[in-house]
Amino acid sequence: MATERMLQFFRDRRPEGPCLVVDLDVVRDNFLAFAHAMPDTRVYYAVKANPAPEVLRLLVELGSCFDCASVGEIRLVLDAGATADRISFGNTIKKARDIGTAHELGVDLFAVDCVAEVEKVAEYAPGARVFCRILCDGEGAEWPLSRKFGCEPAMAVDVLEAAQRLQLRPYGVSFHVGSQQTNMPAWDLALGQAAAIFRTLAERGIHLRMVNLGGGFPTRYLKDVPAAEAYGASIYSYIRHHFGNRLPETIIEPGRGMVGGAGVIKAEVVLISRKSDDDPVRWVYLDIGKFGGLAETMEEAIRYPITTPRDGDATAPCVLAGPTCDSADVLYEKTPYALPVSLAIGDEVLIEACGAYTTTYSTIGFNGFPPLQSYVI
Amino acid sequence: MATERMLQFFRDRRPEGPCLVVDLDVVRDNFLAFAHAMPDTRVYYAVKANPAPEVLRLLVELGSCFDCASVGEIRLVLDAGATADRISFGNTIKKARDIGTAHELGVDLFAVDCVAEVEKVAEYAPGARVFCRILCDGEGAEWPLSRKFGCEPAMAVDVLEAAQRLQLRPYGVSFHVGSQQTNMPAWDLALGQAAAIFRTLAERGIHLRMVNLGGGFPTRYLKDVPAAEAYGASIYSYIRHHFGNRLPETIIEPGRGMVGGAGVIKAEVVLISRKSDDDPVRWVYLDIGKFGGLAETMEEAIRYPITTPRDGDATAPCVLAGPTCDSADVLYEKTPYALPVSLAIGDEVLIEACGAYTTTYSTIGFNGFPPLQSYVI
Repeated sequence: MATERMLQFFRDRRPEGPCLVVDLDVVRDNFLAFAHAMPDTRVYYAVKANPAPEVLRLLVELGSCFDCASVGEIRLVLDAGATADRISFGNTIKKARDIGTAHELGVDLFAVDCVAEVEKVAEYAPGARVFCRILCDGEGAEWPLSRKFGCEPAMAVDVLEAAQRLQLRPYGVSFHVGSQQTNMPAWDLALGQAAAIFRTLAERGIHLRMVNLGGGFPTRYLKDVPAAEAYGASIYSYIRHHFGNRLPETIIEPGRGMVGGAGVIKAEVVLISRKSDDDPVRWVYLDIGKFGGLAETMEEAIRYPITTPRDGDATAPCVLAGPTCDSADVLYEKTPYALPVSLAIGDEVLIEACGAYTTTYSTIGFNGFPPLQSYVI
Repeated sequence: MATERMLQFFRDRRPEGPCLVVDLDVVRDNFLAFAHAMPDTRVYYAVKANPAPEVLRLLVELGSCFDCASVGEIRLVLDAGATADRISFGNTIKKARDIGTAHELGVDLFAVDCVAEVEKVAEYAPGARVFCRILCDGEGAEWPLSRKFGCEPAMAVDVLEAAQRLQLRPYGVSFHVGSQQTNMPAWDLALGQAAAIFRTLAERGIHLRMVNLGGGFPTRYLKDVPAAEAYGASIYSYIRHHFGNRLPETIIEPGRGMVGGAGVIKAEVVLISRKSDDDPVRWVYLDIGKFGGLAETMEEAIRYPITTPRDGDATAPCVLAGPTCDSADVLYEKTPYALPVSLAIGDEVLIEACGAYTTTYSTIGFNGFPPLQSYVI
């Protein structure tokens, strides 16, 4: 939803579009909702979702920690005022020299999912804490993850034993249930697997301390604090069930859940046309598409809410497409989007829930269009 | 194929990867191959394929014209030394103010595919030449186009009549048979439709002059000049068949065909792992993926040739993925890629035929990784 502050900004500043506006008040509310719903859990904001300096500075002030995917993100977080002990290098795929740089910058917590990565961390960040990511099948998520990250739980035991052998500190287990995960048993299953790894390693004298619950928190829960609390309560009950009275430290890595709802993109209708006189479907072309920031419409995975100045008028389905000379730059075609019949060329529309994974997904200049402009208010 | 000049560059300069190297000699050869294969046709290079200033300057020198998708690209071409009369604003989706800017910059040739776009051009670029794009079904292309661009041929007649009525100059018809099109009847069909539009309009006193044959020329034909000539000869024979002795001007808009084979990306193996001890498939992670320039691996559409320092050793299939914390950043998984069993972390690999649609498809900084670096030699 566009906030009153966003609407005021659009009215006063009339920024040339397309552009993203992020309202820091919403980010603050989201951070506090997470903190309230899961009071015993540390928040590591997934910087990749939106690395705008203003967002990072606010989260530094609020006491957040940070999940970074690269040395570039680590530097952004340090520049925003965080100390290195609040940073996790959460990418399981790291160049050896990037591990070394992170270590020099003071980062002490690294994700791994195989022995080869443990060996790199042992050499370039000796003595660091490592946590092993395990595979989840992502069932029930709106955007299920592939098998790209994590290893089977049985292998995680070997990975963490290798860490111990190489004089790292085996610190914990992480998983990611998939983006926008609303299927609670997915959490139960993953926590059961994590607890089993804790027990197996404890029998071998290795005492893990932390469970990284990853991200996957649905954005819409955050609107509704009681629902967020219920979500947190369920997860805590699974943790107590699987870990008994030896409760681990827990961390979460919200990205979309923190900033997704905090941003709105203003776009413009560039063209409306039909392919023939009797074509039942209108094509509506916006000045933003897959290559300008809306990459998450890939396979029509994410369906953004769109508001127009003609809302309330009768609607009809249309194919929605971006402005580039690329036939793949179509947002919604398999499932056409209902928009007002009265929509006209030049109309400004608002694409909502765009605070996450838009500015960074934007291409640097495909078709000569500049990257998505962003304003943080 | 990596040229000797590229290999020399990698040896001497040892650029930090990932990076693209483009060999201008290959671009020159490709331009001359097009000019030789289709001597009666003007080449409008599709700038979006690779807008590097060095590439544009070379093509300006060689006498090329330019197909631009935006005002940004028009400015790049003008900066490279071209006069505005060598520029076509080939995007059918244009903001009115961008049409106006192009007109002020001297551009006189605009693509349209509906009456609404004609009206915009008439208002903001009065008196300009317009050509109407018609739909092709793209059958036989490696990357068939959607229905995003163009209108049904019957509607093109109305569109060009509207142009005449609004005191523009109806100039011609364009089509695009789909990328990497090797099915010659696709050209025959499209040319037949174009000729029919010429005849219908001639009966109404409107005399079109130009057929824009678009792009779609397969890169591999260019390696082999006789094959390129045969390709050109076939197209000319279709033109003679459909247009008889009233031959139209023709233009082509090669992009991939001009620069695709002229570029090689150097990348590094960041990690090799398996998901479990008995996992038959290795995962090989490179320092470049879908968001760093290899967006055309979407749906595994384009399969780049990859050479490694271990070529000749026994190979086994692997899943190939990029370095970001995004589960969609996987290059080849459905059809695993055979790579040497001896491949090791830290190995440098060359990804070939990457000169087109890589630098511009690169995200501005997803996961904190910088955009793809490019060197033109």
